Amino acid sequence: MSSIDKVLARIDANLESSLDRLFDLLKIKSISTDPAFAGPCKQAAEWLSRELNGIGFVASVRETKGHPMVVGHRKSGKPGPHVLFYGHYDVQPVDPLDLWETDPFEPGIVTREDGTKIIVARGAADDKGQLMTFVEAARAFIAETGDLPVDVTILFEGEEESGSPSLHPFLEANRDELSCDLALVCDTSMWDAETPAISVMLRGMVGDEIIVRAASRDLHSGLYGGSAQNPNHIVAAIIAGLHDENGKVTLPGFYDGVIEVPDDVKAMWQRLGFSAEEFLGDIGLKYPRGENDRTPLEHIWTRPTAEVNGMWGGYQGAGSKTVIPAEAHAKFTFRLVGDQDPMKVQQSFRNYVRSKIPPDCTVEFISKEGSPALRLDFALPAVEKGQKALQDEWGKPAPLIGMGGSIPIVGDFKRMLGMDSLLIGFGLEDDQIHSPNEKYNLTSFQKGIRSWARVLNELAGN
Amino acid sequence: MSSIDKVLARIDANLESSLDRLFDLLKIKSISTDPAFAGPCKQAAEWLSRELNGIGFVASVRETKGHPMVVGHRKSGKPGPHVLFYGHYDVQPVDPLDLWETDPFEPGIVTREDGTKIIVARGAADDKGQLMTFVEAARAFIAETGDLPVDVTILFEGEEESGSPSLHPFLEANRDELSCDLALVCDTSMWDAETPAISVMLRGMVGDEIIVRAASRDLHSGLYGGSAQNPNHIVAAIIAGLHDENGKVTLPGFYDGVIEVPDDVKAMWQRLGFSAEEFLGDIGLKYPRGENDRTPLEHIWTRPTAEVNGMWGGYQGAGSKTVIPAEAHAKFTFRLVGDQDPMKVQQSFRNYVRSKIPPDCTVEFISKEGSPALRLDFALPAVEKGQKALQDEWGKPAPLIGMGGSIPIVGDFKRMLGMDSLLIGFGLEDDQIHSPNEKYNLTSFQKGIRSWARVLNELAGN
Repeated sequence: MSSIDKVLARIDANLESSLDRLFDLLKIKSISTDPAFAGPCKQAAEWLSRELNGIGFVASVRETKGHPMVVGHRKSGKPGPHVLFYGHYDVQPVDPLDLWETDPFEPGIVTREDGTKIIVARGAADDKGQLMTFVEAARAFIAETGDLPVDVTILFEGEEESGSPSLHPFLEANRDELSCDLALVCDTSMWDAETPAISVMLRGMVGDEIIVRAASRDLHSGLYGGSAQNPNHIVAAIIAGLHDENGKVTLPGFYDGVIEVPDDVKAMWQRLGFSAEEFLGDIGLKYPRGENDRTPLEHIWTRPTAEVNGMWGGYQGAGSKTVIPAEAHAKFTFRLVGDQDPMKVQQSFRNYVRSKIPPDCTVEFISKEGSPALRLDFALPAVEKGQKALQDEWGKPAPLIGMGGSIPIVGDFKRMLGMDSLLIGFGLEDDQIHSPNEKYNLTSFQKGIRSWARVLNELAGN
Repeated sequence: MSSIDKVLARIDANLESSLDRLFDLLKIKSISTDPAFAGPCKQAAEWLSRELNGIGFVASVRETKGHPMVVGHRKSGKPGPHVLFYGHYDVQPVDPLDLWETDPFEPGIVTREDGTKIIVARGAADDKGQLMTFVEAARAFIAETGDLPVDVTILFEGEEESGSPSLHPFLEANRDELSCDLALVCDTSMWDAETPAISVMLRGMVGDEIIVRAASRDLHSGLYGGSAQNPNHIVAAIIAGLHDENGKVTLPGFYDGVIEVPDDVKAMWQRLGFSAEEFLGDIGLKYPRGENDRTPLEHIWTRPTAEVNGMWGGYQGAGSKTVIPAEAHAKFTFRLVGDQDPMKVQQSFRNYVRSKIPPDCTVEFISKEGSPALRLDFALPAVEKGQKALQDEWGKPAPLIGMGGSIPIVGDFKRMLGMDSLLIGFGLEDDQIHSPNEKYNLTSFQKGIRSWARVLNELAGN
């Protein structure tokens, strides 16, 4: 039996203990966006550092102004590329909690009617389950062969779900330590449950939050209704005016820099047989909403978007309260593609919002840093090696696909550290990441570990 | 000293103990709209019943399917009209709590920089302070003269702030007991802090709440953004489309039944010297928002409105969450005037909303009963008597005014019990009812008690 086969056999034999370790990590409530959970975030970092040291990495928790990083190194003493693996240990908030069928921080394995086994917990897929596929692959390789096939550095972040404020300073301050030949990122999806994929187009993102203020206090809608400004109406008009009747975003200059995908890539995607009916049917919808001259695959991979992730103003309790609130709020995100400039998009948005504010009202903006979209070089040698490893594991070719979400780190690795990234992940569309009842298929976890072992082996040239 | 002068002197002498009693009532958290406060609502009813029995009424707490009523009777044995006094002991919710400068249920007296003394607490003005002006007037009359000058029935309700669901059945079931010659209602405002007023036009109201549902779960805006329906956008478009660029409500048939005010009434109002700058300046605004061919006094007295009292959908916490929510909500109220039909307005609204719902999304409506607008007969003899009593107390004529808010009970008294209502109240525009830091001027309380003593005296023909 070749050494890779032995590693793969060990992975399968030790699946139970791999799951135990994943469950320990999933139990930690590392919600990065809510300051109340700073303690659990630190706890997750310490847990990961211990694990890495336990399998033979030299690892440590590295403080930042926000949640800490975890960095670990393991030299192989062999030729071949030095790779950096990236994942994030922080998770999304869990609200609305009443829609969870189980405690989001009490992981368990559920067998579905069709026999599929799934791991259910917040972070099961995004990103604790995914990052542990790599850790377990490394563990098996070292245990079985005494070493890794290439030099590996690991970087775990704890702020991916809250805008990664500490990432730039950390990369800047540790440029030499973290600059490797190639980054491996496990935060993406497969094409479907049987077909692996490598993501080569990632949308960027820029966000903004607005607080529109009118009267100096909440008003009685009987006394003032009809005469005083109602911030709910102002915010609603701002939201409603963002799209035209064809689904296009109305902000001036918004589409500057949007690039059409080359015909050969479109042709490859055509062959994937993507079904809009199934894609939307899975979530209880039927009709694509976006730009009406584009396909749903374009909507989610290659077209920019404007979405309101939250809006609120006035009374939300039971019954009625005849109030005109003093203020109303909305949170916006814009997904970006091609060469769209995040700051120009934000500026155009702010100009638009200001144009909708009556002269006796005010608006406050709360923003976070944006990130441009990213396209990887399809011809990168690592892409071909990754495709080979994935095909060996899954028995099917791994298409190069686009991705609707943003992974800003990939741009940072390229711009700040000169590293290309190989994006391989085992998530599925129905994983309900960012939603109640998040899950990760057991096959994603097991074959994900096996896939990383194969990828490391391919990268070493074995 | 005439007997009324003695009563007035006693009122002034006993102001401190009147305030102590008011504070006891204000401490009870009788928020009717939130089921969690059913206990305190009952407690407030029991407190009032005890007080009425204590001053010589025959009073009791009367159960309903919701919060209880309090009914008390006191026969004078004298000729003259039998009057029914109405008030409500329930109060509005207190959120946002962090904007209160003091605990809303720990009443206190604050002296403002200009020397004005104010009673601060939830319900200080709406309506506990107001109803206690009548109770204290009755107390002083009985204590000083041994009796009231007319037969008096008192009805206190506990569901005024939550749509009065039990009121119709209760009036229906107790028609004989509650039918009097005239109703006195203390839930309205003065013209300004020195000028009393009698309200003769009241806007009606109809409300509706919508829940718009799209996907079967919350979605990641990166995976689905641009293609899946976002209920925040749908609700925003519904709100934004309710008014046209001239401030008119766009619902078909909405203005059917709206009546123009007679020229002589408009002329009387003109003489009031109403200042839109001051009215809006007091709440930090400058420019009237409503129909742009109407004055602000028309906006709030004689024109119908559409207001969103609450809207919400998606993530509202700290930081960002890139979610497309499964549902979004909004609460609407429409103020009605003239002969507008509440049910027709609601039907038109619902048709409009349904026309804005994409075919793969749904809308649920949660409504409450509406009430039409009301105009009192300006020539009612009681109106003249009320004006005389108020002029005696305040030294200024009491104008007949309109009122933006709704007091549905007035219509019910007329339609169900054949009673006209005399609407006299001592609230002020800056009382912040339904808002944080609600207050009631100490002069409103003291001179309010004195005013009711005078009104009872006038109605008796003394």
